Amino acid sequence: MQLKFTKMHGAGNDFVVIDLISQRYKLRSHDIRKFADRRFGIGCDQVLVVEPPSNPDVDFRYRIYNADGTEVEQCGNGARCFARFVHDSKLTTKRRITAETPAGVITLQCLEQQRVEVDMGQPELEPELIPFAAAARADSYHLQLPGQHLEIGALSMGNPHAIVRVTDIETADVAGLGPAIESHSDFPQRVNAGFMQVISEQEIRLRVFERGVGETLACGTGACAAVVYGKLRGWLSDTVTVQLPGGMLSITWRGPGHSVIMTGPTAVVFEGSIKV
Amino acid sequence: MQLKFTKMHGAGNDFVVIDLISQRYKLRSHDIRKFADRRFGIGCDQVLVVEPPSNPDVDFRYRIYNADGTEVEQCGNGARCFARFVHDSKLTTKRRITAETPAGVITLQCLEQQRVEVDMGQPELEPELIPFAAAARADSYHLQLPGQHLEIGALSMGNPHAIVRVTDIETADVAGLGPAIESHSDFPQRVNAGFMQVISEQEIRLRVFERGVGETLACGTGACAAVVYGKLRGWLSDTVTVQLPGGMLSITWRGPGHSVIMTGPTAVVFEGSIKV
Repeated sequence: MQLKFTKMHGAGNDFVVIDLISQRYKLRSHDIRKFADRRFGIGCDQVLVVEPPSNPDVDFRYRIYNADGTEVEQCGNGARCFARFVHDSKLTTKRRITAETPAGVITLQCLEQQRVEVDMGQPELEPELIPFAAAARADSYHLQLPGQHLEIGALSMGNPHAIVRVTDIETADVAGLGPAIESHSDFPQRVNAGFMQVISEQEIRLRVFERGVGETLACGTGACAAVVYGKLRGWLSDTVTVQLPGGMLSITWRGPGHSVIMTGPTAVVFEGSIKV
Repeated sequence: MQLKFTKMHGAGNDFVVIDLISQRYKLRSHDIRKFADRRFGIGCDQVLVVEPPSNPDVDFRYRIYNADGTEVEQCGNGARCFARFVHDSKLTTKRRITAETPAGVITLQCLEQQRVEVDMGQPELEPELIPFAAAARADSYHLQLPGQHLEIGALSMGNPHAIVRVTDIETADVAGLGPAIESHSDFPQRVNAGFMQVISEQEIRLRVFERGVGETLACGTGACAAVVYGKLRGWLSDTVTVQLPGGMLSITWRGPGHSVIMTGPTAVVFEGSIKV
C-alpha cells in the first residue's frame, strides 16, 4: 500500500510524521529505518506517529522513533510538529491538544504564525532520578574530567541533561567536551551535554551534544534544561529566548514546582506517499 | 503552488525528479538548493527536470542540477531515473526514449525489472579534449604526485576521468589520492578520480572520488571510463559488471569508434508535493 506522510521540521530538527488514525498500517522497525534514511528513504532525525489514545480523555497517542528504529520518550521539537500536524490535517479542531507519550500526558497549544506551546512538565532535580551520582541535590555540581574540573548543572526533562556555562558559544569545545560529559561515569544512563552562553537575563545561546547522536541543530529539552539551570543560578529571568543553531525557542519557567513551557516554530516541508 | 515531484535513486545516487511538462513553473536556483537540502528540503544529490524538447524529433529535454543550483552536462544514473520516470508517469508510451541534454542527444531504453540502458556516447580519448596535459594520446599515462608516480588512464565521458588500477579496492587510498588527482595541474578543469580493482575480464570493483563532491556511492560515467581504460589495456572483455558501493552497473564497449552502453537499476522511493 501507499502510506501518506508529512515531512516537517522544528528549528531544524526534522521529522517524518505519519497519521495512523486515518490510515491502517502496522509500522515495523525496518519501516522506521527506511523512512529515516536520507538517501534510500525519506530522511529525518525521528519518525513521529499519531495514533488513537488508549485513554479516551486524551486526544491522541503520539510516539517517537529514532532513526535506528528504537522508540524514545520525549522530543520537544517533535511535540510541536505533532500538534501542528493534527491541527493542519484536521484530525482535531481543538487548539489545545493533549497527547499520551511514554513520558506521560503532554499538553500542547497551537498559537499564531505556526508556533506551538508545549508544557514540558516539571524538571526533575533529584540526583538519583536524573540519574546522576551526587551525594545531595544542589543548584550546581563539580564534574571531574581528565585534566579539568567543570562546574555543571544536572537535571532531567524526561531525559538527563548536564549544562555548562561558557563565555563564548562559538569557541566552546563541544566536539571535545561533549562526548566526555555524555559518557562520564557519574551519569549511569549517559547524558545530553548543553553549552550555554548567557547574553542577558532574557537571552542565551545554546549548543547541545545529544546522547547517542552528537551535536544537533536544536534540542528542545536541552533548551528547557539550560533555562532551568540558569534560573536556579540567578542568571536568568522567568522567560528566556534560546538561540540554537537551527532556530529560536522561547522558554518560560517560574521556578521549582512549576512546569517548563516551551514555545517554538514548526514548518511543513512537503507531503508525500511511500510504498510499504 | 504545490509542485509535484518523485524521489528516485540509481545505485544509491539520489534524485528529485520534476515534470515541467504537466506542471508549469519556472524553477530558480534557490528552489534547486532548497529541494536538494536533506534537512530543510527534500534531499538529493541532483535535481532532474523533464521539459519539452526544443527539437521536435527528440522526445524530451532533460536537465540536471547539482545541489548548489548549478546546471551540469551529464549524469548516467540520473539518465536512467529520467527514463524510468517518463515511462512510469506515462509522459510517453515508448520504451526507447531520446532526450536533449547539454552534452547532446542521448538515447535510453527501458528494460525489464526497472533497469534502463543508456547509450553514453563515445569516449573522448584526445588529451586536449579531456582536457589533460599530455604530448600525445596513449592508452595510459604517468602522473607525478608528491612522493609518487601513478600510472593512470585519462579520458572524457562528457566529463573528465582519471582511472587508477589498484590491487585491493578496500584498502585503496581514495581519501588521500582522490583529492590529489582531482586537483592535479595536468587536468585544467580538474578530474573525477576512479580506483578500479580487476576481479576478472568480466568484473571490476570501483570507487570514485567525484570532482567537487568527494567519494560517492555510484558514478555512472566513472564506471564507463574505468571499463574503457581496462579494455584499452587488454584487461577486460566487451561487457563488464561494475560493482560500486551503491549497486551494480553493466557496461559494454566494443572499442574505439563505438558508444559505451550502460545498463543499471532505478528505484522510485516516494512521491511528494512541495510548496513553491
